[in-house]
Amino acid sequence: MRPGAPTQWRIDRQRLQNAFEALAAIGATPDGGMHRLALSDADRDARDLLFSWCREAGYATRIDRLGSMFATRPGRRADRPPIMIGSHLDSQPHAGRFDGAVGVVAALEVMRSLDDRAVETEAPIQLVNWTNEEGARFRPPLLASGVFAGLYTVDFALARTDDAGKSVAEELARIGYDGAAEPGWPLTGYIEVHIEQGTVLERADAVIGVVSGVVGIRDIMVSVIGEDTHAGPLDMSLRRDALVGAAEMIVKANEIGLRHAPEARATVGRISVPSNSHSVVPGRAGFVLDLRHPEAAALEELEAETRAAFAAIAMARRLEVRLEEIWSYPPAHFDPTMQAAIRQAADAQNYPALTLPSRAGHDAWNVAQVAPAAMIFIPCRGGISHNVAEYAEFDHIAASADVLLSTVISVAGGC
Amino acid sequence: MRPGAPTQWRIDRQRLQNAFEALAAIGATPDGGMHRLALSDADRDARDLLFSWCREAGYATRIDRLGSMFATRPGRRADRPPIMIGSHLDSQPHAGRFDGAVGVVAALEVMRSLDDRAVETEAPIQLVNWTNEEGARFRPPLLASGVFAGLYTVDFALARTDDAGKSVAEELARIGYDGAAEPGWPLTGYIEVHIEQGTVLERADAVIGVVSGVVGIRDIMVSVIGEDTHAGPLDMSLRRDALVGAAEMIVKANEIGLRHAPEARATVGRISVPSNSHSVVPGRAGFVLDLRHPEAAALEELEAETRAAFAAIAMARRLEVRLEEIWSYPPAHFDPTMQAAIRQAADAQNYPALTLPSRAGHDAWNVAQVAPAAMIFIPCRGGISHNVAEYAEFDHIAASADVLLSTVISVAGGC
Repeated sequence: MRPGAPTQWRIDRQRLQNAFEALAAIGATPDGGMHRLALSDADRDARDLLFSWCREAGYATRIDRLGSMFATRPGRRADRPPIMIGSHLDSQPHAGRFDGAVGVVAALEVMRSLDDRAVETEAPIQLVNWTNEEGARFRPPLLASGVFAGLYTVDFALARTDDAGKSVAEELARIGYDGAAEPGWPLTGYIEVHIEQGTVLERADAVIGVVSGVVGIRDIMVSVIGEDTHAGPLDMSLRRDALVGAAEMIVKANEIGLRHAPEARATVGRISVPSNSHSVVPGRAGFVLDLRHPEAAALEELEAETRAAFAAIAMARRLEVRLEEIWSYPPAHFDPTMQAAIRQAADAQNYPALTLPSRAGHDAWNVAQVAPAAMIFIPCRGGISHNVAEYAEFDHIAASADVLLSTVISVAGGC
Repeated sequence: MRPGAPTQWRIDRQRLQNAFEALAAIGATPDGGMHRLALSDADRDARDLLFSWCREAGYATRIDRLGSMFATRPGRRADRPPIMIGSHLDSQPHAGRFDGAVGVVAALEVMRSLDDRAVETEAPIQLVNWTNEEGARFRPPLLASGVFAGLYTVDFALARTDDAGKSVAEELARIGYDGAAEPGWPLTGYIEVHIEQGTVLERADAVIGVVSGVVGIRDIMVSVIGEDTHAGPLDMSLRRDALVGAAEMIVKANEIGLRHAPEARATVGRISVPSNSHSVVPGRAGFVLDLRHPEAAALEELEAETRAAFAAIAMARRLEVRLEEIWSYPPAHFDPTMQAAIRQAADAQNYPALTLPSRAGHDAWNVAQVAPAAMIFIPCRGGISHNVAEYAEFDHIAASADVLLSTVISVAGGC
C-alpha cells in the first residue's frame, strides 16, 4: 500500500487515459467523434475490450438478459450487496467520445486502484456497462437499467426494435451478449460518473458536480394530420399542409421553452413526413417533443401550455393534432448520504465542487428507484454533447475517478 | 366502320373502364389508393399487363434504355414520324389511381377504337408509358422523358439512385425493362391526357381542359446548419437548433407563397434531420423547397424573396443556411395548333372546354422541347391528387378519350 489516508489516494492517471483512449478508438469517426450505436459491431468490440480487461484483473464477469455487463471485485463480507459503479458504452449517432465512456473507465480504474493497494472493502464493488442507455437505436432510452429497476419487463425490452425492424433480442444474440442473468439484484449503492453536458460547472470553475437528482422528462409523439395533395394545382389557400402546421408547432414549443427559462427545456429532435416527396403537400407529419423541468408542477404546466398552443395552431390551419406520451419520468432526487460522501471526497482532494441537478436522463435515475444512487459530474466544454465536438479535460476525468475511489471506499467500508 | 363523322366517334367505354380497373388493381392499397413506385414489382406487373394488351392488338412494342415503353400502330405513310400519346404508370407513395394511368388507358383505347373502325391514319400512332414521371423514388421527376428530350444523358439517368442506394439501371434490369432503344426520335406531335389535379375545371363545370402550357418550377435543397447538442443540460438560449430554424423557414415560405396568391405555389414536401434522436438538439436539418409560378419573372421574385427571408431567419438564430438548386424548369407553352385541334374536338362532341395552364410538371413539358406537344385535362374531385382520395369521374375519363381519338385523327391525318 502507498502512504497517506485513503481520502488522499489518487488513481493511476496514465492507465486511466490508456483505457479511455483504447475504448475511444472503437467506433471513432474521422472528425474526432464517436458512432457506437447500441448493439452495433462497434459496441460489441468495445464490450469485448472492457471484459478482456476485467478478466485479466480477475473480476467475476456476468451478463444479464438485456446484455448489461457486470464485473465484480469481491468484498470481505459476502453477505453484503455490491456497490455498483459504471455507466454506458453506447453513443448517439455521430456524437462524442465522453458521454458514458468516462463513467465506465473511471469505474474500472477505481477497481484497479483498489487492486494496486490490495484493499479489501467490506461490500463487493461491481462495475456495470448498461445496454442501450442512449435510446438512439432502440427506444426508450435507459432501457436495460429500466429493466434492472423493474420499470420494464425483460420481454418488453427484448422486443424493442430499431428503425430497420431488428429487435434487441436478435441483436444481443448476433453480437454474443445475450446473457442469462435475470436483471435486478440488491445493491448497497450505485454511483455513476458522467460529463455534465451543460455549462454550470464550467461557468463556476468547478471540477466536481455533486448531482442532487434528475429533472423530470416527458417525451410526447405529436401527429399532425391534414391532407396529402399535389404541390402544383390546388390553390395554396385550400391546402391542409401538415408539415407547415408541425413547423409552426416546433417554433412555438421552442418559444414556450424559452419563456420558462432558465429551468425548462423543450426540444424536437425527430421529425418525419411519410409522403416524403418534393411535389406532395404533406398530409401527415410527426415529431417527438421532449420536455424537461426539475419541478414536477412546472413540467405539467409546460406540457399543458404546449398542448393548448398546438391545439390552437391545428384549429387555425384546419389540421388535426394528436399527442401521445411515449415515456415520462418524474423528477428524481438522489440519496443525501451518498451526495454527502461525494462532497467530502471532493473536499478532501481539494477539487472545487458544486451541487447541481442533472438535466439529462441517466441510468442512475432508474437505479435510484431501487437503491441509494448518486452521480458525479465533470465539466464538458461549452456544454456541447451528443456532438463530435464534445470534450472533457483529462484532468477532470482523473479528478472524477479520484473522487469515485474515495467515495466507494467510504460507502463500501473497509479501510 | 361505324356511321357518323370521325369527330362524332366515341371510344368503347366499357373496354376503357375494364383496362383502367385492371391496371388500378396492381399496386392498389386497401384504402382505395395506389402505391406503385417507379420500377417496383407493382410497376413491373402494370407494365407487363399493358404490353400484353398491346401485343394482343398487334402493335409493335419497343423499350428504350430508360425503360420507357412504346407500342406503335402503323400509319399509311412510313416516312412520317408518329403521333405519340400516353402518360405514366408510376405513382407517388400511397397516392391515387388516376394520376398517369388515365392518360395511358385513354391512349390505348384510342388505338383500339381505330382498330375497331379499321382506320388507317397517315402518321403512325405511338403509345408511351414514361419511366419515373413522379420522381418519388428516383429524382429528378420526369426522368425518362427528360432523356428523350435530350435534357439529360442516358448515363446520368441510369445512375440515379433511390433512398436505399439502388440505381435506375439496377432496377430496370431487375424488373426486365432494360431496353435497347436509344431514347429520342422525331415525332409529329405528342398529346397527353391527365387529371387536372386542381379545381379550375371543377369550379367552371368544364369537362375538358385545353392546357396552354406548364408553370415554371424550381426545386431548391435547403440545408440549415447549427450545432448538435444534448436536449437537456445546455441553456436553451445557447442552442443553435437547426430544426427550429428550418421550421421557421417552412412557415415563412408558406406565407410568401400565400402572399403571391393565386398564381404562386411554395411547398416543402421533404424534410430530414440527420441526428434523428429525441434527445439531440438538431445541428442539421434539410428540406426541399418547391416553387411554382406561370410567369418567369414572378418565379424569380418568389425565389429572391424566399432566399432573403431564409437568410434573415438564419442570421437571427445564429445558423448557417445553404440553398442549392436541384432542378429548374422555366414556364413552357404548348403548341397553338395542337391546342386548337383539342378545342375543336371537344366542341364537336359538346364537351364544355376551358383553356388553363398546368401547375404540375408533366412529361409533355419535356417533349414540348423537341416536338409540338399538348395536353388534355379532365377534372379531379376537389383538386385532390397525390392522395388516396384522388378521384376522377368515369364519364370524364371517357370524354377525354373521345377528344383524344378525334384530335389524333385530325393531327395524324387520314380519315
